[in-house]
Amino acid sequence: MKAKVLVTRKKSIADPEGHAVQKALTQLGFDQVKNVRVGKIIEVELDQQSVHSSKEQLQQMCEKLLANPVMENFEIEMQS
Amino acid sequence: MKAKVLVTRKKSIADPEGHAVQKALTQLGFDQVKNVRVGKIIEVELDQQSVHSSKEQLQQMCEKLLANPVMENFEIEMQS
Repeated sequence: MKAKVLVTRKKSIADPEGHAVQKALTQLGFDQVKNVRVGKIIEVELDQQSVHSSKEQLQQMCEKLLANPVMENFEIEMQS
Repeated sequence: MKAKVLVTRKKSIADPEGHAVQKALTQLGFDQVKNVRVGKIIEVELDQQSVHSSKEQLQQMCEKLLANPVMENFEIEMQS
């Protein structure tokens, strides 16, 4: 069972990395770029069959380790 | 026009960050975790209407700045 966890900063939290990337893109001539935000993607492979229990486990992993709930949002995408 | 760019290390390249996360998850009691890989997600907002030309632009951005083609793969997901 594979899953992708997307961890992004909350909208209200400044994103200096995204800002730096946006500036660099503008300097390279990509003037259409209005906003950039950078987050993390964590691909997890689980030794488990049930989608339901896997998702529950991943939710716990996010709360305990993968995301910082004060500053970040997370999204879990289950795969095959 | 919004898009998500997913940048992940190629399978053949070691991922020490993913390895550290996997180890930490195991120590927290998540024994089912078989493998973890960590990548970047870059959310880009473009001031442009056409999906086709936006995707072309994003492809160029990835090749020039967002991804390192020697070590990383990228994937572009167009949104509304």
